[in-house]
Amino acid sequence: MENFTYAIGTRSYFGEGQIKNLGRNIRQYCARVLLVYGQGSIKRNGVYDAVIEELGKSGINFAELPGIEPNAKLPDVIEGVRLCRLHQVGGVLAVGGGSVLDCAKTIAGCVAYEGDPWDLISMQVRYTKFLPIFTVLTLAAAGSEMDALAVISDMNRHDKLITGSNMMLPKVSILDPTYTFTVPPKHTAAGSADIFSHICEPYFTVDESAYVSDRIAEALLKTVIHYAPAAMDDPTDYEARANLMWASSLAVNTLTAKGKDIGWSVHEIEHTISAYYDDVTHGVGLAVLTPVWMEYVLSEKTLPRFVTFGLNVWGIDAALPPIEIARLSIEKTRRFFSSLGLPETLRKAGVSEDKYFDEMAVKAYGPEGRANSFMPFSAEDVRNILQKSF
Amino acid sequence: MENFTYAIGTRSYFGEGQIKNLGRNIRQYCARVLLVYGQGSIKRNGVYDAVIEELGKSGINFAELPGIEPNAKLPDVIEGVRLCRLHQVGGVLAVGGGSVLDCAKTIAGCVAYEGDPWDLISMQVRYTKFLPIFTVLTLAAAGSEMDALAVISDMNRHDKLITGSNMMLPKVSILDPTYTFTVPPKHTAAGSADIFSHICEPYFTVDESAYVSDRIAEALLKTVIHYAPAAMDDPTDYEARANLMWASSLAVNTLTAKGKDIGWSVHEIEHTISAYYDDVTHGVGLAVLTPVWMEYVLSEKTLPRFVTFGLNVWGIDAALPPIEIARLSIEKTRRFFSSLGLPETLRKAGVSEDKYFDEMAVKAYGPEGRANSFMPFSAEDVRNILQKSF
Repeated sequence: MENFTYAIGTRSYFGEGQIKNLGRNIRQYCARVLLVYGQGSIKRNGVYDAVIEELGKSGINFAELPGIEPNAKLPDVIEGVRLCRLHQVGGVLAVGGGSVLDCAKTIAGCVAYEGDPWDLISMQVRYTKFLPIFTVLTLAAAGSEMDALAVISDMNRHDKLITGSNMMLPKVSILDPTYTFTVPPKHTAAGSADIFSHICEPYFTVDESAYVSDRIAEALLKTVIHYAPAAMDDPTDYEARANLMWASSLAVNTLTAKGKDIGWSVHEIEHTISAYYDDVTHGVGLAVLTPVWMEYVLSEKTLPRFVTFGLNVWGIDAALPPIEIARLSIEKTRRFFSSLGLPETLRKAGVSEDKYFDEMAVKAYGPEGRANSFMPFSAEDVRNILQKSF
Repeated sequence: MENFTYAIGTRSYFGEGQIKNLGRNIRQYCARVLLVYGQGSIKRNGVYDAVIEELGKSGINFAELPGIEPNAKLPDVIEGVRLCRLHQVGGVLAVGGGSVLDCAKTIAGCVAYEGDPWDLISMQVRYTKFLPIFTVLTLAAAGSEMDALAVISDMNRHDKLITGSNMMLPKVSILDPTYTFTVPPKHTAAGSADIFSHICEPYFTVDESAYVSDRIAEALLKTVIHYAPAAMDDPTDYEARANLMWASSLAVNTLTAKGKDIGWSVHEIEHTISAYYDDVTHGVGLAVLTPVWMEYVLSEKTLPRFVTFGLNVWGIDAALPPIEIARLSIEKTRRFFSSLGLPETLRKAGVSEDKYFDEMAVKAYGPEGRANSFMPFSAEDVRNILQKSF
């Protein structure tokens, strides 16, 4: 078990009606915020009105940055920084899913920097100061509401980068499962695949000594498997929405990675896809890539981990031969994603051609690949996985 | 799933050698602390020297309150408050197990109060201000290193009370599993029973809708079951000590209780025992009471929960009739404690007579008993459990 630090700096208010805690919490930091949101769904489902009412009650002024697109993009960050300066806001309030939150979190870190925000996003220059960040979550998926990371794309550069800083952690997040009742099935499925992948990334290691973290990871995986179909069947199933939402936050707040020497694998590959094909929903790409990645990395060395995964997550019969348990665990993972209506190939996910695969393979982990204790990855390995997923 | 707030304000440094982070963290708050510790084991195993060296490096002065006994007691709190005032310290540093930490945490809350500390401890007067609290843990058991509670006894009153405040959360905790290498088997066993009970208290509810919290609870229970015997066999088994230590912190930091309408049961009964019989180790009392309590509350209404417990924690065959799964789960719990060398009766645990049982039964939850959604408890119920455990 590796050494680690544990500190969860975000105060989360979870449950129906928790929006009532937003105003007084923001007031502890500032009296004017930039309100960042997406493409209008919050205006249709009443969340926008609830937020505005709550801000009004606490006398908080706001400027607005609407229209954040899926896959948070550089121009929105730049525009947000401009608005923060223009209106001299004291904080950033994100209302939406992962892209909105990631955009807002990055804006909050770029306001104090006079240079090109990309310097910070690409981590060539260190973040030094953040405006306080507040979030109201409307999609169980990215876990951005309780982590210190953001993913930002520059479509011109074909770059989708993970950026972060300890200071990027939201101060307060409102997690009201009823705000996800209007999420359409397609995005419930993609969000569930995203949560599933966030748990798998640190779970698949050769070292099994961080037993408690691995058992917690399995608890979260079982939650996704149990409730994703229920939320698809009945979008207003509170228990399903609530468990998915809480699992999404715990999945990526580092809890399941404690004591582990981890290296993420599939997310970076998916990010290169999104950087070329803007239409591919992140979670959909992950659902395609994950089973292919699993098959690719299954080896004598990684077999025990797949057996643990098969027994503890999928309840496969322990009497079967280990290799069969492993293969069955991958098959069950693939079937789970299919059962949510997610595609099994990149082509069906919206990747129309394979001509950029060489470029993408290098982008994922750089030309040298990545040393990952589970399985080292060369650009060629990434290329192979992309091709097998196509 | 019930509404909740989640905020973990303690910064935990986990792993071998993490003591190196203590000084600079304390320095962010103060330059003089009261160093609270127990009956000398930290002087024998080198932890005391490591702490002193680390304080010296950061130029932190300290006064000392040694000799804290098992079951933190009122006179030690009073003496600690006196020392804090005399030496005008800016914080309290606890080095030890649950009793030392609880005593230090309570001292930190009583310094600013001019009246009788018992007013605060018994929650008749609200805590208003705390000195910052720092802990170095030497026993995996109480979870006091990451919670906002303390248990303090007044043996004259025969009262052992749970006291707490949001402000009682330690600022920084050092969790070095090697500091528990010298814990003798008896206390490793008792500590493991304490952790087990902390997980069971919020786990046993009728409502099963907080699925994710329940699965995490099972993850922690499995950790205790897996590693307590290993730590007994080889006290220097780092993996076992590390997993037990991290499980102890997560068990009681409210993570497993999120979204649940909970009411603790067994702890309060055990506290009345300790309040009369100072020699009964808390965890030992819990190990005796827990299986008896389980048998007592098993009913048609609570059966499904015991079945879940039996299947998910103990791996009992799902093909068995539910009532058999439930009974077997209790039997396995009892056998687990026995296998750690823990006694099965209160008499063997050090309760020499049953003459105070009537008084104790009233003390546990008051004369009216307690409304608990799992099973309401009258004083007579407590009396029955004490007698059956005797």
